Amino acid sequence: MKRVTLAELAKMIEGEVLGDGSVVVSGLNSLEQAQEGEVSFITKVKSGDSLRNQTYASALLVPLSVEAPDMDVIKVKDPYLASAIVHNFFLTVDFVAEGVHRSAVVAETASLPEQVTVGPNAVIGQNVSIGARTVIEAGVVIGDNVCIGDDCLIKANVTIVEGCLLGNKVILHPGTVIGSDGFGYATNSQGFHFKRPQVGIVEIGDDVEIGANCCVDRATFGVTLIKSGAKFDNQVQVGHNVVIGENSILVAQVGIAGSTTLGRNVVMGGQSATAGHLLIGDGVMVAARGGVHTDLAPGAVVGGAPAMPIKQWGKASAVYSRLPEMRKEIRSLKKELEDLKKQIDDTK
Amino acid sequence: MKRVTLAELAKMIEGEVLGDGSVVVSGLNSLEQAQEGEVSFITKVKSGDSLRNQTYASALLVPLSVEAPDMDVIKVKDPYLASAIVHNFFLTVDFVAEGVHRSAVVAETASLPEQVTVGPNAVIGQNVSIGARTVIEAGVVIGDNVCIGDDCLIKANVTIVEGCLLGNKVILHPGTVIGSDGFGYATNSQGFHFKRPQVGIVEIGDDVEIGANCCVDRATFGVTLIKSGAKFDNQVQVGHNVVIGENSILVAQVGIAGSTTLGRNVVMGGQSATAGHLLIGDGVMVAARGGVHTDLAPGAVVGGAPAMPIKQWGKASAVYSRLPEMRKEIRSLKKELEDLKKQIDDTK
Amino acid sequence: MKRVTLAELAKMIEGEVLGDGSVVVSGLNSLEQAQEGEVSFITKVKSGDSLRNQTYASALLVPLSVEAPDMDVIKVKDPYLASAIVHNFFLTVDFVAEGVHRSAVVAETASLPEQVTVGPNAVIGQNVSIGARTVIEAGVVIGDNVCIGDDCLIKANVTIVEGCLLGNKVILHPGTVIGSDGFGYATNSQGFHFKRPQVGIVEIGDDVEIGANCCVDRATFGVTLIKSGAKFDNQVQVGHNVVIGENSILVAQVGIAGSTTLGRNVVMGGQSATAGHLLIGDGVMVAARGGVHTDLAPGAVVGGAPAMPIKQWGKASAVYSRLPEMRKEIRSLKKELEDLKKQIDDTK
Repeated sequence: MKRVTLAELAKMIEGEVLGDGSVVVSGLNSLEQAQEGEVSFITKVKSGDSLRNQTYASALLVPLSVEAPDMDVIKVKDPYLASAIVHNFFLTVDFVAEGVHRSAVVAETASLPEQVTVGPNAVIGQNVSIGARTVIEAGVVIGDNVCIGDDCLIKANVTIVEGCLLGNKVILHPGTVIGSDGFGYATNSQGFHFKRPQVGIVEIGDDVEIGANCCVDRATFGVTLIKSGAKFDNQVQVGHNVVIGENSILVAQVGIAGSTTLGRNVVMGGQSATAGHLLIGDGVMVAARGGVHTDLAPGAVVGGAPAMPIKQWGKASAVYSRLPEMRKEIRSLKKELEDLKKQIDDTK
Repeated sequence: MKRVTLAELAKMIEGEVLGDGSVVVSGLNSLEQAQEGEVSFITKVKSGDSLRNQTYASALLVPLSVEAPDMDVIKVKDPYLASAIVHNFFLTVDFVAEGVHRSAVVAETASLPEQVTVGPNAVIGQNVSIGARTVIEAGVVIGDNVCIGDDCLIKANVTIVEGCLLGNKVILHPGTVIGSDGFGYATNSQGFHFKRPQVGIVEIGDDVEIGANCCVDRATFGVTLIKSGAKFDNQVQVGHNVVIGENSILVAQVGIAGSTTLGRNVVMGGQSATAGHLLIGDGVMVAARGGVHTDLAPGAVVGGAPAMPIKQWGKASAVYSRLPEMRKEIRSLKKELEDLKKQIDDTK
Repeated sequence: MKRVTLAELAKMIEGEVLGDGSVVVSGLNSLEQAQEGEVSFITKVKSGDSLRNQTYASALLVPLSVEAPDMDVIKVKDPYLASAIVHNFFLTVDFVAEGVHRSAVVAETASLPEQVTVGPNAVIGQNVSIGARTVIEAGVVIGDNVCIGDDCLIKANVTIVEGCLLGNKVILHPGTVIGSDGFGYATNSQGFHFKRPQVGIVEIGDDVEIGANCCVDRATFGVTLIKSGAKFDNQVQVGHNVVIGENSILVAQVGIAGSTTLGRNVVMGGQSATAGHLLIGDGVMVAARGGVHTDLAPGAVVGGAPAMPIKQWGKASAVYSRLPEMRKEIRSLKKELEDLKKQIDDTK
């Protein structure tokens, strides 16, 4: 267990201690669950509120706005971000290699470092290369010629199909499949579908995290590319030849159809999707359940299906429930207008 | 094979035999597929219809409305429910422990009862505790410190990540992942996402059944809670710190975002979803594909996205296809009104 | 590596060589990535365009419209289809059986041919029958009494639950589950759900390909049927007692609810879905995200949710974003009409 003073923590997160900087903490927890000896955090503070009444924590990370707190605090610009950094600091431990479990099946031509952990019943194919301090958990299947970088965590029952490339610090959660075939057929006049061979690969950059039971298809030719820093929630589906830009976020159950390119720091809300062969610019945000059918300029914020600017969608979807009423009003207007016309004709 | 008389069956399901209570049956089947010696069931009967012409079954479970049937029947309040009880009766057999397969990898510190079956290539971590008559199928991976109750069925290739707790009579279908990390990051000013450690667990009550390839994320802090009697179809996604109430039903491909609480006996239709941090009251029903963005009072029945009362949604969605026509009518009204105005001005 | 002349290729795809039929090629690649010695293809050619400037390939498959090309070509009716046939020709190699890996667990009563490959840590149950030249990859779990045909490819970590039947040339991608329980319960007056036993199976025809992390539920009674030539993308969900017709295509994240029947050559777009107990006719096309709530006649092309004819949906969804404007117009018309009425009354 790491033990650190508030003064030391403050340095780590560019914060300022208000109170006793020599207080020692050894973990981070939520406001409700923190105990003495732990630090916690709060992102919004009403002026005048007691902090001490909200937590048993020994100290809090608080926003810059806090003045004269009734407990020891560290003021930081972004307590949410700071708490992530502090929590990771407390939890990070030196890597301890457990080696290759006796039940794992590793091809003779695979190249594994000394600093590696390969769990029970994992299977590693021909010419696979695995980096230092990488953990391959139980039941993982890694196909031939896969290359995995340093400090990766491949969780249980993941499948990485042959030839795919992973960078450093990649995390794959259980059940995820990297490098499944893209969905491509050519159909003859009788309606029979001939499979188009999918001979490309998936390439994943550094610091990518992919949730549980996701699928990333290999390219038909070339590469399906997940760039560094991208984060996928669970059950995300990425088609062949897609490019996902740096630091883009795909929330749960998103689907990206083949050959679409997402820029940097795109955010796709839960269950949202794009059609194929689109260009989605840097920083685009798609609301949950949004369906994107056209290219989107950088910074666009859209919702609905087909997707439209988010404000427009907000207004339109608010009116939607009044459609029956609008229809009645139109009928009523028609009737009144007819009556009026008749009345005018009669007075002639 | 169990053999039982209609009189005995009738007792089991609080029914009344019309006909020969001494008839013996040894199984339940569908109306179309039942053979002599089997019992079947029918939920709707038109008066005057022959039952005998619809099935080869030896007897039928029928609704109370049936009078003077042309074959042996048991009248019950709810033949659908009664058939489930009878079918389970016929299929339930005494548990036969197969022990731990030689190829399974079980940590020395794991605690397994005598009455257990652990299939080939299953992997069971440190300090795992498994209850009596529980079956762990092939390829399952159970992380350290997981606790599983009695009479559970963990199907092939399931992953249960460390620390998660399962009650009694829990069924997990193949490929499901319990305890994957919640999706949480803090983003710095350069757009880089720092992972928020997910140190909580998933806790599952009794009689919970979870379909194939589902994901239930562990809490950031604390517990993601699936209460007793909840049933999930396949490919359901449940985020961190969610609470699913007793007997709630999540149909296939549903997504529940983080920190949302569902009450008792909620029904989420296929592909429906909720945003995060919501309170969904007891007995709420969300139609297939519904998207819930606000808290919902107990008993609310909603549809659409954003979700609205189901009747309103039914009417609005019926009008939706007439939007182009409505737009034309508005234009036409405008024109007519202009013409009328002009006509009036001209007559002045 | 196969080597073949353009003349030989032309015969294979009913094409006509323009140029040197004796040129030898040994592979197919995309236009951009093809190198000398490879053939590529192009589906659309503007008259007057140079082909040579677009690729390093030694030859191209081109549409019939091409005249006087500036490189060696084979003219065919459908270059996209022809390229699939040629690519498969180059990649197809004679099956080489690798036998059963020493770490696989195969029940004594299972029947495996000599020409088979069973990968590491695969598990094959009692009375399983596997056809010639079938490959079972690592981590696959096959339940008792499953029957698999010839020339199948069952990729890593797939689960096939007991009793299911697969035809010939079936491909299942990683993580897919065949034969999970259908989702069926009978609920008592206290809201407790009694599980309805799911005693049917899944039967899959020939030439079926199912993507990664899909689920196909077994029937309650009888059979869930996936007919020959059907193709599923990733994360598709098929409920109990569904029938999927020949050559039907289900794009990623589609959901088909229980007891619905799809005809031949149906196409379900990404994330689309059907309710249960429907009849979807031959050749129906459902646009991405479409939600089908009613039977559909053969050849229907629909979109939206609830689904409507695609043209109507196109028009309605185009008007949707103008709803707020329409509402204002209606209000404005009302006001103008009132004014006019008053004006007329005043003139009386």
